[in-house]
Amino acid sequence: MSEDIIKETYEKIKNMEIRGAGRIGRAAAKALKEYAIKISHLSDDEFIKKMKEAGNLLISARPTAVSLPNAVKYVLKGLNEDNPKERVIERSDEFIESSLKAIEKIGKYGANRIKDGYTILTHCNSEAAISVIKTAYDEGKDIKVFCTETRPRNQGYITAKTLYDYGIDVTLIVDSAVRYFIKDIDIVIVGADAITANGCLVNKIGTSQIALIANESRVPFLTAAETYKFHPKTIVGELIEIEERDPKEVVVFKDKYKGIKVRNPAFDVTPSKYIDAIITEVGLIPPQGAWYIIEKYFGWLEK
Amino acid sequence: MSEDIIKETYEKIKNMEIRGAGRIGRAAAKALKEYAIKISHLSDDEFIKKMKEAGNLLISARPTAVSLPNAVKYVLKGLNEDNPKERVIERSDEFIESSLKAIEKIGKYGANRIKDGYTILTHCNSEAAISVIKTAYDEGKDIKVFCTETRPRNQGYITAKTLYDYGIDVTLIVDSAVRYFIKDIDIVIVGADAITANGCLVNKIGTSQIALIANESRVPFLTAAETYKFHPKTIVGELIEIEERDPKEVVVFKDKYKGIKVRNPAFDVTPSKYIDAIITEVGLIPPQGAWYIIEKYFGWLEK
Amino acid sequence: MSEDIIKETYEKIKNMEIRGAGRIGRAAAKALKEYAIKISHLSDDEFIKKMKEAGNLLISARPTAVSLPNAVKYVLKGLNEDNPKERVIERSDEFIESSLKAIEKIGKYGANRIKDGYTILTHCNSEAAISVIKTAYDEGKDIKVFCTETRPRNQGYITAKTLYDYGIDVTLIVDSAVRYFIKDIDIVIVGADAITANGCLVNKIGTSQIALIANESRVPFLTAAETYKFHPKTIVGELIEIEERDPKEVVVFKDKYKGIKVRNPAFDVTPSKYIDAIITEVGLIPPQGAWYIIEKYFGWLEK
Amino acid sequence: MSEDIIKETYEKIKNMEIRGAGRIGRAAAKALKEYAIKISHLSDDEFIKKMKEAGNLLISARPTAVSLPNAVKYVLKGLNEDNPKERVIERSDEFIESSLKAIEKIGKYGANRIKDGYTILTHCNSEAAISVIKTAYDEGKDIKVFCTETRPRNQGYITAKTLYDYGIDVTLIVDSAVRYFIKDIDIVIVGADAITANGCLVNKIGTSQIALIANESRVPFLTAAETYKFHPKTIVGELIEIEERDPKEVVVFKDKYKGIKVRNPAFDVTPSKYIDAIITEVGLIPPQGAWYIIEKYFGWLEK
Amino acid sequence: MSEDIIKETYEKIKNMEIRGAGRIGRAAAKALKEYAIKISHLSDDEFIKKMKEAGNLLISARPTAVSLPNAVKYVLKGLNEDNPKERVIERSDEFIESSLKAIEKIGKYGANRIKDGYTILTHCNSEAAISVIKTAYDEGKDIKVFCTETRPRNQGYITAKTLYDYGIDVTLIVDSAVRYFIKDIDIVIVGADAITANGCLVNKIGTSQIALIANESRVPFLTAAETYKFHPKTIVGELIEIEERDPKEVVVFKDKYKGIKVRNPAFDVTPSKYIDAIITEVGLIPPQGAWYIIEKYFGWLEK
Amino acid sequence: MSEDIIKETYEKIKNMEIRGAGRIGRAAAKALKEYAIKISHLSDDEFIKKMKEAGNLLISARPTAVSLPNAVKYVLKGLNEDNPKERVIERSDEFIESSLKAIEKIGKYGANRIKDGYTILTHCNSEAAISVIKTAYDEGKDIKVFCTETRPRNQGYITAKTLYDYGIDVTLIVDSAVRYFIKDIDIVIVGADAITANGCLVNKIGTSQIALIANESRVPFLTAAETYKFHPKTIVGELIEIEERDPKEVVVFKDKYKGIKVRNPAFDVTPSKYIDAIITEVGLIPPQGAWYIIEKYFGWLEK
Repeated sequence: MSEDIIKETYEKIKNMEIRGAGRIGRAAAKALKEYAIKISHLSDDEFIKKMKEAGNLLISARPTAVSLPNAVKYVLKGLNEDNPKERVIERSDEFIESSLKAIEKIGKYGANRIKDGYTILTHCNSEAAISVIKTAYDEGKDIKVFCTETRPRNQGYITAKTLYDYGIDVTLIVDSAVRYFIKDIDIVIVGADAITANGCLVNKIGTSQIALIANESRVPFLTAAETYKFHPKTIVGELIEIEERDPKEVVVFKDKYKGIKVRNPAFDVTPSKYIDAIITEVGLIPPQGAWYIIEKYFGWLEK
Repeated sequence: MSEDIIKETYEKIKNMEIRGAGRIGRAAAKALKEYAIKISHLSDDEFIKKMKEAGNLLISARPTAVSLPNAVKYVLKGLNEDNPKERVIERSDEFIESSLKAIEKIGKYGANRIKDGYTILTHCNSEAAISVIKTAYDEGKDIKVFCTETRPRNQGYITAKTLYDYGIDVTLIVDSAVRYFIKDIDIVIVGADAITANGCLVNKIGTSQIALIANESRVPFLTAAETYKFHPKTIVGELIEIEERDPKEVVVFKDKYKGIKVRNPAFDVTPSKYIDAIITEVGLIPPQGAWYIIEKYFGWLEK
Repeated sequence: MSEDIIKETYEKIKNMEIRGAGRIGRAAAKALKEYAIKISHLSDDEFIKKMKEAGNLLISARPTAVSLPNAVKYVLKGLNEDNPKERVIERSDEFIESSLKAIEKIGKYGANRIKDGYTILTHCNSEAAISVIKTAYDEGKDIKVFCTETRPRNQGYITAKTLYDYGIDVTLIVDSAVRYFIKDIDIVIVGADAITANGCLVNKIGTSQIALIANESRVPFLTAAETYKFHPKTIVGELIEIEERDPKEVVVFKDKYKGIKVRNPAFDVTPSKYIDAIITEVGLIPPQGAWYIIEKYFGWLEK
Repeated sequence: MSEDIIKETYEKIKNMEIRGAGRIGRAAAKALKEYAIKISHLSDDEFIKKMKEAGNLLISARPTAVSLPNAVKYVLKGLNEDNPKERVIERSDEFIESSLKAIEKIGKYGANRIKDGYTILTHCNSEAAISVIKTAYDEGKDIKVFCTETRPRNQGYITAKTLYDYGIDVTLIVDSAVRYFIKDIDIVIVGADAITANGCLVNKIGTSQIALIANESRVPFLTAAETYKFHPKTIVGELIEIEERDPKEVVVFKDKYKGIKVRNPAFDVTPSKYIDAIITEVGLIPPQGAWYIIEKYFGWLEK
Repeated sequence: MSEDIIKETYEKIKNMEIRGAGRIGRAAAKALKEYAIKISHLSDDEFIKKMKEAGNLLISARPTAVSLPNAVKYVLKGLNEDNPKERVIERSDEFIESSLKAIEKIGKYGANRIKDGYTILTHCNSEAAISVIKTAYDEGKDIKVFCTETRPRNQGYITAKTLYDYGIDVTLIVDSAVRYFIKDIDIVIVGADAITANGCLVNKIGTSQIALIANESRVPFLTAAETYKFHPKTIVGELIEIEERDPKEVVVFKDKYKGIKVRNPAFDVTPSKYIDAIITEVGLIPPQGAWYIIEKYFGWLEK
Repeated sequence: MSEDIIKETYEKIKNMEIRGAGRIGRAAAKALKEYAIKISHLSDDEFIKKMKEAGNLLISARPTAVSLPNAVKYVLKGLNEDNPKERVIERSDEFIESSLKAIEKIGKYGANRIKDGYTILTHCNSEAAISVIKTAYDEGKDIKVFCTETRPRNQGYITAKTLYDYGIDVTLIVDSAVRYFIKDIDIVIVGADAITANGCLVNKIGTSQIALIANESRVPFLTAAETYKFHPKTIVGELIEIEERDPKEVVVFKDKYKGIKVRNPAFDVTPSKYIDAIITEVGLIPPQGAWYIIEKYFGWLEK
């Protein structure tokens, strides 16, 4: 059956055989393309109806993975154009190609913002932010990087080691020392877990206070985010749920102190007013442009 | 010889037999009192001269311990009053008594600021801040406390355990989660390592960013500080040196990553504009009153 | 004559037989549709010319009612597309349908922003803001609402009664008490009289100071506005005139005090920097996106 | 019995025969003076003991009337000086005279801040603020005054009438219109119900949001306050309780709407950072100087 | 050869025979049009290829003149549309016409923001800002203008003279006096050297501190900028290089003081948060809309 | 006659034979001392009366020179102490000595704030600020200084030359370039023409915008001011008049442009919130302490 390709991908995403924001999105796009080819003999109306059903099924596999609906919406936006059959296939290719090159392009665009001699602060462990830093280094710029520990899971150590292995001058500090060192920092670059329609950044706990500190001292704060991290449902007002993770990540108290509560939120929300720009694979945009990106690429705006 | 009492105390302070801000101050005051009694037969001029020499010697024992010059200055301020001999002895007693009661009084005054049902945030491990919280609890107020971990030395765990042992509802969070939880906090109360003449607070690394965050959300931020923590030399412009401690407190990297630098400043400086009040044993004052406290109690203002 | 339908609607709008932002807009759209059907036998060029004349006539009926030119512009934007005749008719239907569903959709999208347990502050009496609150209540959320009196005409009482009749927990406060209670408020939601191209909100007097207060305490401030409230002429720099209403709305002084002047501005302007998002029937947008909405839906941007 | 004078005054204050901040303070000072004269034959120690007892009794008559302990403390501060008997009597006279002249002096000092051509905004009905305005007018300055209504009790109308009767150009606005008109205002002058040790202003509900608005537009905000309004207990951390008054002052709902809650706080707290200066009868001071005034005149600082 | 028209224009731009942002852009557009006509007999694919080559050549003539790539990109955007040959020619005409009318339209739209009785502050010497002021004056508005000197080259004198010759009331002040006079200013209008993708303004040195001052006192700050000043390369993260000009423009020291360094940056960068709106020939936009303008008119956004 | 010494000094100050804030103050103090010696045979009451008359006469010689009443008040404060005759003479000596050493002490205290490697920004030409910079240099610190031109009279050139002659690394910039360079600046130090009771700084035009800029970027801003620059009359609300100087200092227009107005205010007012500390010869104080300095040294507070 022609639907098999869709169902198969649906299953693999659902049971987490396919994981990672980029991979999920590309798998969905690929499935839609193959399906479109198979059913291209149908009438336009029939084709459109079938493709929409396929899209809805795929989205239902993991509703909270923002790259999944974004991929589907990106591809199916072609249904509203002339020659919907061709366009759906073309758009599928576009999504896959763009997604594959996103980290590289973000690296290039972000590196343009880093001048020779800069000291950069980063937080947690972001592939996109690291791409920016490495690209600047590759361009021969003399840079230094400050990494926070990023309690409780200490992902900052991974970032520090990755950059150090690459040959970059790295300094590690505790999360509490950001305001102490901010005057030595020329630019802050972090990654993103999600971007909301009104330009807020959902990222690793601690990000919002780093942005506040950078703003107090007039240090530019940028986030590097592939467009498939832009959260379309926030256009219809949905809030991104902040996950509270297992307290054991922070500490395991012995019996006597078991009664001490531990709260462990994984992310926080940085308001758009503290973000100078979002570095995406389609260019640098002001945070207030997030909404337009969602509209332009994924066609989510209501009619 | 009558100077023996001074020399003896000088030695004990110098070789750190006597330690702790309060104890050092009281030892110096006590030595000055005993010495004053011994030399009270001298003429006023002679007495004043000798007492000043004794004071200078004591101060030289540990010039960076701010409670030492404060104690000496407090006692010797009596030399400028009528009946210098009597006044010096009286002021010595005053200093000792006031110092001994300081934590208790700070607890009482600070607790007046805590209303029933409040959630309090504290950072690091401060005897004075804990006194405020315990007193509020003793007064039957229903309170909750959030403690930060306070990396790198995790003194927040000690605070959490101390308060929990006392029966108080305690929640522990990572240092990065302060802005996430600040809307649940009614008041921030921290201790102080030193207070400068223009009302800045020198305290455990991370304090200044907590103050910034509290200010952003209009949450009152108070520091609890005995007056002998007020740093008189800042009146003549001296900066308090921020100690950078051993990187090993943060992390010990294995060989391959030894090249990653670690910076470990122990304290930071919170500007007066983010401090609502300083809770001292002589009352609650605005931070800009710090200078007057130094002047009034220790007579440090230049002529 | 085929123009009769246009003239008739023109008259009804002019003499205020047709009133209310939504109704005016829909009447204009309906007239244009019927007229387009009647003249659909004309050549494209002739058709376009006639439709533009009809649009200009309708707009002239009440130039200050922002929904009128918005409706006309929305419909006539179809003239620039392929198949102008069909598109004009389709767009007329779209406008009418969208307008009719706007309040409901705004309610739904806005309610997504309200969490269980929230306390909401509103000001004046806005159909759109009330729709948000009622929808949240309908969704089973446990909410409380604070209403300001909204002097001088006390529309806050109407809001309070409407919500109370609906079963919602309502508290009424004087306009001066907003800053006193703001720490108990989780979100502010108000309506809109107009939205400017650069994202400012024109609304009932007092709105801008509520926004300022919310911003000082980091409480989200949202406005609920149908897109036909977005003011296209502000794109070409026109200022929205703030009406000063009859002083008698405030007070009528007796003879002796007749000389006391009374000023009674009906609206004020809230700058975009104090607005977290605008809730429209096409989604939540950052205030800086207002200009794009005008461009996208009404085609007002100059060439 | 010589104590009779004290008891009599105690009773009159207690049963509110003597009312008003100024009158209460002066009555207490007068009683202490007369009592001091009567017991001046006692030894100094005996005199001091008796005077303190008398002071404590008087204070207990109405503990929440801040001028009462201030008057007693002012007078009894003389007990710590040389010639306590004479000093107590002198200080009693000083307090009474100073109190009587306070409004006049505040008028004079405050008027120095008002330039010819100024437009002044005031809120509620303050004798001290009116004194400033009238004095500026008496000095021949061409001034205009904006009065807010000051809901719920509309004391702004009294202010408006008082100033209008005096010949001053007065405009009345609703409380919500402050931000609308703030750009036409050159200076804001309000009264005070109490001043706290760290320079906050407790005054009629709405004051704090006017101060916030003035600050946003860089318009100076001053409060006029007799020194006996400075609240000494705030030095030991006590919070000033904000009274919630009868909801009926705001509105009386008919039966059907009785369930709508009404909250009616009488005062709010303006933080020191929004106050440019406090106009007192001893001069203009920065708000952070409040604490020194309490210390200097009333001797409340702890030892 | 048909390429001659391109090469000729390339040369004239390169050797600065053609100068000025507007003229350069129009020359490029004109050359592309004439070239398109000449090669319109080619196949679409061939035509597109040739036009792109021509565009790249033209851009290479002066890569830092932002109007040059903008003109080329504007015209060649037509290559992606149906009927590329016609569209390229039409778009060339559009660009030229729009460019020619830009100053006039900016004048008209900006003047809508100026009310009768306004006092306007401007800095340096901007054709667009002057157009706004003159238009407001032509509309019969009673306006006053403050001009800064604009050290080091004193272009403010030229502005002052131009406006004075036009009959406008002009006051000249030193650059340091802006904050002193800002309360007398109703609106600030300056020109632009370039606008970045995230809404920052690159303009004459001193502009950013005027914007900061205007923001502190809530005075609207607008910049007048033709759309061809919007810098497309900033979308891919490129920073606009701030030129440091010859120190001799500031001062020439005699021998003894030759060692005193002189720094003379020509421009500074005003962040978007201090800009209320950008006045362009296509309308007033919020600064965060800059990126959309670049995308819409020049098609620079990456795919 | 014994009054001759007073009259003589009065005349010399009046006819400007004696000039300069410091010299005027010292002359008045000296005259009072000599006069006190001459009339020391009088009764205390008579002595006090005569001294007050002498003081008033001296003050009347140049009421706007703030150092004159400060000197007189400083000396005559001794009249309220025990042994008024001796105290007046002692206090006269104190004032003169303190005044003579003020610049040196300010230099020393201020230099404590300058760390090795600092870049300092100064404005205009202040003896006290230069003393701070030179002292830091003398202490062997490696410092750089940025001087503004300080239009219209270009006093910055004098500062630049003075420091350059002293061997210091100096860079000159136009006044408009402060915000451009502020990130390279570690501390701003300026002088003072006067300090008001509530901690505002009256200084050369442009100072307040430099303070605003420093504050925006979290760069410390300090003013160096001898205590006799503290303006006592501001305690009673008097405003310091800002002098507007001859427009010719800015520019002399030729006939045709004579109609262009030129405004030339000499000073502006920096609010206390932008000042980190005032460096005086008695120590560093927070700006809000200005009032206490006036009270303590000059006894100006009202009773």
